[in-house]
Amino acid sequence: MLRGNRSAAVQQNPSVPGATPITPTAPIRAAAHGGRAKCLQRLVRLGLPVPRTEALDFDTVRGIANGARFDAAGLLAGFGEGVLVSVRPSSAADDWGGPRSVLNIGMCDAAHARLAHGVGAAAADALYGRFIHAYAVQVARLDPEDFDPAAPIPDLLAAYRAALGEPFPQDPARQLGDVLRAMARAWDGVSARLMRQAQGAPADAGLGLVVQRMALGVGDPRRGESGSGLIQFVDGATGQPQITGRYRSQSQGREALLPGADSLFVARDPRGPALEDRCPEIFAALVEQGALCRTRLREEMQIEFTIGHGTLHVLDAVRVTRSAPAAVAIAVALATDGIIPESEAVLRVEPRALLDLLHPRIAPDAGLRAATTAIAASPGAATGRIVFSAAAAQAAAAREEPAILVRRETASGDVHGMHLAQGILTIRGGPTSHAAVIARGLGVPCVVGARDLALDDGAGRLTGPGGLDLAEGDLLTIDGGTGAVIAGVAPLIEPELDASFRTLLSWADERRDIGVRANCDSPAEARIARRFEAEGIGLCRTENMFLDGGRLTIMREMIFAEAASDRQAALDRLLPVQRADFTELFRIMAGRPVTIRLLDPPLHEFLPADTEGIRDLAAALDLPVAEVKARIAALTEVNPMLGMRGVRLGITLPEIYDMQVRAIFEAALATQPRVTPEIMIPLISTRREVEIVKARIDTVAAEIRVETGENFDYALGVMVETPRAALRAGDIADHASFLSFGTNDLTQMTYGLSRDDAGRFMAAYVAQGVFPDDPFTRLDTQGVGELLAIGATRARAVRPGITLSICGEHGGDPDSIAFCRDRGFAYVSCSPFRVPLARLAAAHLAIRGSGLSPTAPPDR
Amino acid sequence: MLRGNRSAAVQQNPSVPGATPITPTAPIRAAAHGGRAKCLQRLVRLGLPVPRTEALDFDTVRGIANGARFDAAGLLAGFGEGVLVSVRPSSAADDWGGPRSVLNIGMCDAAHARLAHGVGAAAADALYGRFIHAYAVQVARLDPEDFDPAAPIPDLLAAYRAALGEPFPQDPARQLGDVLRAMARAWDGVSARLMRQAQGAPADAGLGLVVQRMALGVGDPRRGESGSGLIQFVDGATGQPQITGRYRSQSQGREALLPGADSLFVARDPRGPALEDRCPEIFAALVEQGALCRTRLREEMQIEFTIGHGTLHVLDAVRVTRSAPAAVAIAVALATDGIIPESEAVLRVEPRALLDLLHPRIAPDAGLRAATTAIAASPGAATGRIVFSAAAAQAAAAREEPAILVRRETASGDVHGMHLAQGILTIRGGPTSHAAVIARGLGVPCVVGARDLALDDGAGRLTGPGGLDLAEGDLLTIDGGTGAVIAGVAPLIEPELDASFRTLLSWADERRDIGVRANCDSPAEARIARRFEAEGIGLCRTENMFLDGGRLTIMREMIFAEAASDRQAALDRLLPVQRADFTELFRIMAGRPVTIRLLDPPLHEFLPADTEGIRDLAAALDLPVAEVKARIAALTEVNPMLGMRGVRLGITLPEIYDMQVRAIFEAALATQPRVTPEIMIPLISTRREVEIVKARIDTVAAEIRVETGENFDYALGVMVETPRAALRAGDIADHASFLSFGTNDLTQMTYGLSRDDAGRFMAAYVAQGVFPDDPFTRLDTQGVGELLAIGATRARAVRPGITLSICGEHGGDPDSIAFCRDRGFAYVSCSPFRVPLARLAAAHLAIRGSGLSPTAPPDR
Repeated sequence: MLRGNRSAAVQQNPSVPGATPITPTAPIRAAAHGGRAKCLQRLVRLGLPVPRTEALDFDTVRGIANGARFDAAGLLAGFGEGVLVSVRPSSAADDWGGPRSVLNIGMCDAAHARLAHGVGAAAADALYGRFIHAYAVQVARLDPEDFDPAAPIPDLLAAYRAALGEPFPQDPARQLGDVLRAMARAWDGVSARLMRQAQGAPADAGLGLVVQRMALGVGDPRRGESGSGLIQFVDGATGQPQITGRYRSQSQGREALLPGADSLFVARDPRGPALEDRCPEIFAALVEQGALCRTRLREEMQIEFTIGHGTLHVLDAVRVTRSAPAAVAIAVALATDGIIPESEAVLRVEPRALLDLLHPRIAPDAGLRAATTAIAASPGAATGRIVFSAAAAQAAAAREEPAILVRRETASGDVHGMHLAQGILTIRGGPTSHAAVIARGLGVPCVVGARDLALDDGAGRLTGPGGLDLAEGDLLTIDGGTGAVIAGVAPLIEPELDASFRTLLSWADERRDIGVRANCDSPAEARIARRFEAEGIGLCRTENMFLDGGRLTIMREMIFAEAASDRQAALDRLLPVQRADFTELFRIMAGRPVTIRLLDPPLHEFLPADTEGIRDLAAALDLPVAEVKARIAALTEVNPMLGMRGVRLGITLPEIYDMQVRAIFEAALATQPRVTPEIMIPLISTRREVEIVKARIDTVAAEIRVETGENFDYALGVMVETPRAALRAGDIADHASFLSFGTNDLTQMTYGLSRDDAGRFMAAYVAQGVFPDDPFTRLDTQGVGELLAIGATRARAVRPGITLSICGEHGGDPDSIAFCRDRGFAYVSCSPFRVPLARLAAAHLAIRGSGLSPTAPPDR
Repeated sequence: MLRGNRSAAVQQNPSVPGATPITPTAPIRAAAHGGRAKCLQRLVRLGLPVPRTEALDFDTVRGIANGARFDAAGLLAGFGEGVLVSVRPSSAADDWGGPRSVLNIGMCDAAHARLAHGVGAAAADALYGRFIHAYAVQVARLDPEDFDPAAPIPDLLAAYRAALGEPFPQDPARQLGDVLRAMARAWDGVSARLMRQAQGAPADAGLGLVVQRMALGVGDPRRGESGSGLIQFVDGATGQPQITGRYRSQSQGREALLPGADSLFVARDPRGPALEDRCPEIFAALVEQGALCRTRLREEMQIEFTIGHGTLHVLDAVRVTRSAPAAVAIAVALATDGIIPESEAVLRVEPRALLDLLHPRIAPDAGLRAATTAIAASPGAATGRIVFSAAAAQAAAAREEPAILVRRETASGDVHGMHLAQGILTIRGGPTSHAAVIARGLGVPCVVGARDLALDDGAGRLTGPGGLDLAEGDLLTIDGGTGAVIAGVAPLIEPELDASFRTLLSWADERRDIGVRANCDSPAEARIARRFEAEGIGLCRTENMFLDGGRLTIMREMIFAEAASDRQAALDRLLPVQRADFTELFRIMAGRPVTIRLLDPPLHEFLPADTEGIRDLAAALDLPVAEVKARIAALTEVNPMLGMRGVRLGITLPEIYDMQVRAIFEAALATQPRVTPEIMIPLISTRREVEIVKARIDTVAAEIRVETGENFDYALGVMVETPRAALRAGDIADHASFLSFGTNDLTQMTYGLSRDDAGRFMAAYVAQGVFPDDPFTRLDTQGVGELLAIGATRARAVRPGITLSICGEHGGDPDSIAFCRDRGFAYVSCSPFRVPLARLAAAHLAIRGSGLSPTAPPDR
């Protein structure tokens, strides 16, 4: 790409075609050479002591993978005679994975002899042994078990010869060429591709490689301190300022520092004094360099360094790996310190990442005994029914039934099921296993490596210590923040939001230009909505208020009433219950708007389906079981989704809506500050339905005005859930001051696809690419979205000031929010837990001023 | 309307404001004065001996009803001193009903004395008695039982005084004023309004009145023949030329001629010689006048005449009442004789009337004993399950279950249920009862006056002679052509179509510009489609082919197959069965196009639902009953309409479509002339679904080309049933050479309304005007229709030559055909019995060149 286009700076450092020496002025671009190369250039510009490094661009690496010639000898010659080098991957985004780095290229019998003289025999053995191991495993693809880096060098060389029938390559240029080719090819391997795909990388994402002069980290102690380390200046878990890291004398590379754990400790060599005591000047330099990086690179960086005979070398710096709360704290601190603008702090936090913060945890005082505690891989606690396959997870999601996906380990074919599970538990794997990486990316709570448990796929049983024996469908709780696995249901507590979080969202709110409300069916949910600063309730489904024990019985009496007077008597008993619910909702929302949807589901949903429930109901109603059964059967529908529900109930049995409307008005009159209730009619398909319901509501309102002598207003709106309502939005808008698109049902009807039944073929559909995304998760902008656009345009033509919104589950999906914002919707309404995500996503859209582009990578 | 705008002719016959004397040049218009007034003017123009007649226009009559002054005395004065007059209704269309005529206005004590002298005491008594009766009943609204026209005059006068406390009015002008006002007001009565509405009259339809000098029909036999009669020149049942009528010496008015029966006999006085023998000159004059009417009025007319002392008076002429076959025969004869153009003959037959001709009859050799034989009120035989209310009829229609509506008698509130029933049976009523009139208008078979039967509404039982005892849901057959009522199912035979019918439809075919195909699922239906000259099969639902006993068992084995190999084995056995079906279809259609829809319904529809069926299936499959039950339960869906059906089956279990496609291709190769099969994929919502199925079909086609060495083509199309398919028609058209809109399902999804479940609220919805028409009967042009229009436009933008059609039940509805024609659809496909209707309706549209206007009234 850049070949033949050398700058003057490059001329001073002659290199070979396809490689660019990293100098302050070299034409290095993240999009061509990868993020690591670009970051190294920035370190060079800041004057950090980076060893000579050459960057190979994506095209060059792709060429190497495809067998093109590359002048490895020429490249190596540029580093100087006998110099060892490392090769590291450099892809466009941090999280797209890539092949492991290979160090100490150039080690051979001659170099070994030379180094034994320079740094001592032990160090030279260690360097050679590690290189033979890396070359055997990553280049020659031999079994790692046969190449213990600590084994005697002659044994390793013999093992290599035995395995391949040829001696270990002694030519450094050949070694480098082989390493470059192996790394280039690994990028195109199936598993690397799937990993990248899961992280959202484009199919043609490129790999760059950086070739760097080795700073050894081992040496002659008499000539000064040697060792290697990592240092960072914030806590990756909390984002709070704290110098942490790890340093080991006479060591080399990240792997030596981090034997099997991701966590970092205070910068201390476990075998001796801490770095700050051992080399205070170097420590002070690192702290100064860290501050410089933070200010100039506008990011919290982790610095990888080596000390060679008392000299500091900075090998690399990467963005500090951070939890979601830390990401928020870091972004807010950078903005507070004036390093980045507030709007950039807002953009730095990916909306979906907030879900991590918002996940509930298991109540610490619950006193539950975990069946086992394994590796906490993705934060958040979750309870659900056990499923043993991705397909079953999809089916459960289609039934809106929370599921915990339990697998021995996961693979790319499981990703769609993982996406839909409430939580994931694997028997095998560690913190960087497929399950852990993907779950974190998806924001799904995950526990991995639960080796105490045994999974019998065939029998469909999960067994473990203390007689644990669970089958598919049994309840299970996991806590991805602690690694706990608990049989049954555990009480969860809601997360607290810290000051940084609140600051970031206040910045987001200052910038966003579409409202965010919450879908709340109960006072408890309304309290969450207030805590997350929703601007109001966009959808209160009143049916859930009837599902509590005593109310349910009255509801059933109402349904079973033969005479209108009996029905009215039952409704009269429900009235105070509903009124109290609404009063509580209005009180919690304290004057913020509340949209209440009148009763929607088919009546048979309130009736028992099982024999025991039917027997209880028969007893409660003093009716023969046979009659109760017959009445339930009479209410059963072939396609309940398309049956007598929504406004059809309201027109057929208008007393129900009369009661609800009265409860709403009476509650509104009893509340200070006074609210103007918003009443929403479900399942409208014609204008006349709105007229009929409106006439009855007006009658109830007039009655209450007379009874109380008080005046009040209300807003009437329509839930647009049928394609016809969207098409006829012009007609309907005449009588509606707001339209709220119920995208769940609208999606079902537009596709002719029942969520409840889609599970049986969804796997085949996703596998064959019929649905690129689950249309119930991400708004189908082409079909359903067009109906939204048609509805919006037509409603506005009749009533320019009409309030438009969506209240399906899509209301909490960033892409769907973008769609609504582009069409000038007033607000989205989503589940209370998604409110912060929606606020942040809306701010991203406003700051970027456009729709569907992905989050920009942070500046580096 | 015409007041103050008198022509010169009117000046010669001075009248009063609001009344226009009918002269050849008077400004009489059917739209202002009604059809009868206009017809009378035509008779005057033809020189027929019509007594002086004055026409009151709609505005004048409306004014009279509302209490405006009208100069009845002045009007009467124009007829001359002592003249008796009649008043008859004159509405814009024949079949909109209206008040009964009142004769002999002006009869009073003085006139009675005068007439006793002129025509004899008996005749004078008869005239006065009938007038008192008519005035008492129609004007004073007294009980008809108290006013026997044959009672002595003094008794009648006394009864009148007793009832009202005042003497019978003696002033002819007051009499006339009262009669006019009573008739004007009767037009606005509730029952008259409902009757008109049922006949499709506009809400503001007006009534004109004609006031005519009485020609008495009674007189002094010594001064010559007197009497009254009706004559017509075709048979109203067959439309064949035949002079029929009825004449009675010394009689007056239609009512005297037709004591309790509608049928007419050869023009013969039952009490003496036939008219042609008694007064050959008058008979000859009538025949000549009839021929004149036919040629000049371009219609077969029935003439009402009176002979007074040897002089012929023509009082009125009306279109001959005719059956549907007669309407066809008359129109064809008029065109064949050059009196009207062929296109007008086509327009003269209302498409929906053809349904009468196409109704099946009970096989005459069935040897069934009727439970009773009552009055044959509307032709056609029908079998269905008994329902006892209009609401139940609607519910049955929603379930697509044929129903016979059984009522004691019907009222306007029943009309919507009558419309949806297969047949109607009433216990009471005669040939002009509400049930009979409405049923004929709707084309629904109807038997009335079944007084042998007893209906117990409360118990829901219909009982009768010979131990007949039927409950709701029991099967019943009626024959509206013979009056037979038969318990259970009777074998029906299909109607034969006569030469006139074929001629008319050939004229229609020459003119229409949209194709008509039939929906046929079986060879039997295909044969009907051929007989009715459908241009092809637009929809062959293959699932019905699997419902026969042996096939059903194989189908169930296929459904229950665990292993792919077992499924394939079952499909291998179904292949020859399907191939034979398709071969037969292709053979019957003899080269005409056949569109075959791949399997559509959810698989559980093939499984038994009852205990016995499950037991049989368990035995057939050699599985435990519990397992069969569990498997059936697993296939059960919450919303089967929106579940795993259509193309979702085809993608999940592709072997089924593979088998069907192979059967289609092999059948096509085995047929001469070779057909190009049209394969249609159901329930598409995305382009990718089409691609996947197309790829498999192409594979099967390639296999068969290799196996047979023969080349062949096929056309692939998509059934547009989901709103999304309509919206994305552009995408889909890329892979489809035709799109057929399945408006049944599309209506369900657009409204979010299941036909199966709509019955429970449809009554409330129709009563409150939410749905002006049942959207499953008449295409919802605003919602569903817009999706058709969007789909058509987008598909054509991508593939201008794409073939568009509809194949829902709307395909046989004239308004829906108009909608499709306006949008340039290639064809409609409807049930085979509706093919003639659709052919005729399409011709009407082409001749009129426009869409939705009602049938023009015949020129008169």
